Amino acid sequence: MSAKILVIGGSDAGISAALRARECDPASEVTMLVADGYPNFSICGIPYFLSGEVPDWRDLAHRTIDQIEATGVELRLNERAVAIAPEDKTVATMTAHGTNRLGHDRLVIATGAEPMLPPITGLSELGPTDGVHVLHTMDDTFALRRFLEQSDCKRVAVIGAGYIGMEVAEALTARGRQLIVLEAYEQVLPRTLDPELAAHVQTELERHGVEVNCGVTVEEMARDGDKIVITNGGGPDCVADLVLVAGGVTPSVGLAERAGAQLGAAGAIAVDPRMRTTLPDVLAAGDCVHTHHAMLAEPTYMPLGTTAHKQGRVAGENAVGGDRMFTGIVGTQVVRAFEAVITATGLRDQAATSAGYHPLTVAVTADDHKRYYPGATPIQMHITGDVDTGRLLGAQLVGRLGAEIAKRIDIIATACQHDLRVDELNDLDLSYTPPLGSPWDALQLAAQAWVAARAGQARHVKA
Amino acid sequence: MSAKILVIGGSDAGISAALRARECDPASEVTMLVADGYPNFSICGIPYFLSGEVPDWRDLAHRTIDQIEATGVELRLNERAVAIAPEDKTVATMTAHGTNRLGHDRLVIATGAEPMLPPITGLSELGPTDGVHVLHTMDDTFALRRFLEQSDCKRVAVIGAGYIGMEVAEALTARGRQLIVLEAYEQVLPRTLDPELAAHVQTELERHGVEVNCGVTVEEMARDGDKIVITNGGGPDCVADLVLVAGGVTPSVGLAERAGAQLGAAGAIAVDPRMRTTLPDVLAAGDCVHTHHAMLAEPTYMPLGTTAHKQGRVAGENAVGGDRMFTGIVGTQVVRAFEAVITATGLRDQAATSAGYHPLTVAVTADDHKRYYPGATPIQMHITGDVDTGRLLGAQLVGRLGAEIAKRIDIIATACQHDLRVDELNDLDLSYTPPLGSPWDALQLAAQAWVAARAGQARHVKA
Repeated sequence: MSAKILVIGGSDAGISAALRARECDPASEVTMLVADGYPNFSICGIPYFLSGEVPDWRDLAHRTIDQIEATGVELRLNERAVAIAPEDKTVATMTAHGTNRLGHDRLVIATGAEPMLPPITGLSELGPTDGVHVLHTMDDTFALRRFLEQSDCKRVAVIGAGYIGMEVAEALTARGRQLIVLEAYEQVLPRTLDPELAAHVQTELERHGVEVNCGVTVEEMARDGDKIVITNGGGPDCVADLVLVAGGVTPSVGLAERAGAQLGAAGAIAVDPRMRTTLPDVLAAGDCVHTHHAMLAEPTYMPLGTTAHKQGRVAGENAVGGDRMFTGIVGTQVVRAFEAVITATGLRDQAATSAGYHPLTVAVTADDHKRYYPGATPIQMHITGDVDTGRLLGAQLVGRLGAEIAKRIDIIATACQHDLRVDELNDLDLSYTPPLGSPWDALQLAAQAWVAARAGQARHVKA
Repeated sequence: MSAKILVIGGSDAGISAALRARECDPASEVTMLVADGYPNFSICGIPYFLSGEVPDWRDLAHRTIDQIEATGVELRLNERAVAIAPEDKTVATMTAHGTNRLGHDRLVIATGAEPMLPPITGLSELGPTDGVHVLHTMDDTFALRRFLEQSDCKRVAVIGAGYIGMEVAEALTARGRQLIVLEAYEQVLPRTLDPELAAHVQTELERHGVEVNCGVTVEEMARDGDKIVITNGGGPDCVADLVLVAGGVTPSVGLAERAGAQLGAAGAIAVDPRMRTTLPDVLAAGDCVHTHHAMLAEPTYMPLGTTAHKQGRVAGENAVGGDRMFTGIVGTQVVRAFEAVITATGLRDQAATSAGYHPLTVAVTADDHKRYYPGATPIQMHITGDVDTGRLLGAQLVGRLGAEIAKRIDIIATACQHDLRVDELNDLDLSYTPPLGSPWDALQLAAQAWVAARAGQARHVKA
């Protein structure tokens, strides 16, 4: 008899699990529960719909409903899981028309994450019709877009200078709005970059007319006529026509937790490397689970689309009897802000120290390609290695669009994931032609500087 | 007493050795013999001077003479080594004014390579003033440029569709000349690409008005008035105002050979991983030596600027008492031809088979970034792995300028150099944002296709 697989969630992890289950076992019956009507949408693409670069929201679907169904996956749209009963292997669901109870042999929970709302007085009373938005689902997107189009919205405040904050600031600047970014940390992209590199990003935002206020805690938000008045600690108050709260996400674990699944790092669902929860025959993947990090002994929480795809694929394979392991992340990230490309991977000093490493971080600037060839641009780099072992721990790069910054961090990610030492970067046989590189790639110049700094530090310690 | 280091050759390997020796041992006396007046020039940059993209030839110098001398390296320009006497540790040299004999404690031979002239009847009688050129030194460059400027040169024939052939075809097309490329193999870039991918490159050349004739052996060349008449086997004869012979290079080993150094692969100077020749206290590096390939048991000959820099650095360090190993290449290459970027690394089927692997090569096409974001372009890929072990053996990519093709091959190079399996590419935590990538990078989609093809082949073999 064929396996019945039920997947809760229709975003990256859910669809990856569903498709992989069908691929590995074409006899399996795979059903995917989707709480809204938008399965397999690229939520990472939402800012580019807002900016107008992607004119039709339908294009944000990685696959159409027809394409998904053609793989043999049964879609149940606008049907929300409300309770998991692991003992009798059923899931209770709710639609606009009533309730259902769906049986399964194996369950994959891919409920994702939800926006984290900071403790701002008045925030809970304000919603999209007041001009206060979050941006996580297609419905959020439509609400924001509608507000932009229907109201006389000139001034937009973005609370939180993480990825979404950066991307939306760019998108709405492109749509002619005046942007102000409020960030509680003393820098933009606090979860991604060291402060010195974040300063370059802030400059890029300001160069495009975005007002950036770091070190500012939003204390209160209130509607005043057509406007929203934002009262801040650590910075001037401000007034906006539209507010986007982009304060990160928190894993959606309610269903799993009520069913008795153990939670792990940051309150996300605990899973083993096979993506199995502590409940029998229940797997989980994506933004709702904690993640194994190849450079850390303990799981961490780092919700990213790439990881959701990988974990979903593993969960789907194992749901139909496979034995695949998720090998873990190194925390690779990239975000574009106007013409700047910001990337990072591995551990920064503080995380490395907490994990028991002895990190040394060296700042290096090098051109993306030979300077004599037109168009060379500098790459600002921080490279981090362990002083004791020489192991490469990570890097952060800020450079220009077109300078192959994203795939450069991927070289570092590959090296981190396979335990290379910093000096081994120097031995890599990387490509070179003057319009696209240098005989020593920028990364190798950074590695050379790190090796020299470590030697200097060693001499210093000895002296 | 400080070590006296003599370096023969002022290009990539020579300068790298000289600088590294000074860096590792600031007390060392380092002298660099340069046969012409152009030390540390980027010969890879010559096509971009011809195209006009680099207006001033002086900009092709990685460092100026002043900058080199500021490091403490003594330059002896326009002084050619004519004999090495390893027993008494001297080198005889010649200048326009006479001869010298230079002593040293350790010698680094970095004599590079010279253009290989195919066996074409009449070729040896023709030179730059006749319009028949090679392109290897700055003097060659000036001669070619002079001919272009002074003669009524409309039609240019390039013999050889390797890197230099591609780059010069592009450069002179940009200068308004009509280009014809003649290649003995049945494809362009025969040393780099499989024929199916080379066809895309040929299309790109033709799209820009370059006439490409593959499978054509040039048999004879003769001057007829202002023209050069080229008689071909396997293709129509042709007439040109200027001919560039770009048939690859052969290592310059005369000096080393006469001094008794053993030769290795392809007649290049044999060196061990410490860049030591078989002569005591004589090291060698760059285009004149054979190269350790991390995926081959035997040394090979693959002259590249990146390798010359790395080997030179190792030689320089060891010349002053260091103990550094050159860890070997995987054969990473990149060339741009108009808007196409062509890259390859590792082993292609034939080389892999010769080396005892059981290669399977799979062709995959995938976009450089999410298709919904404007500007996505396809990357044509060949990915090769070993069927028995799953080991990644190499890849070839052809894509568009701006699509991060060069640094993508570097991910594969890093993986090849560290013995990853093809399926491990799929586990790499690579960066993603819709304008710059996909949740599964193109390389990972290629890896997935390869894994599926291998499984299919395994099933096929079993059936």
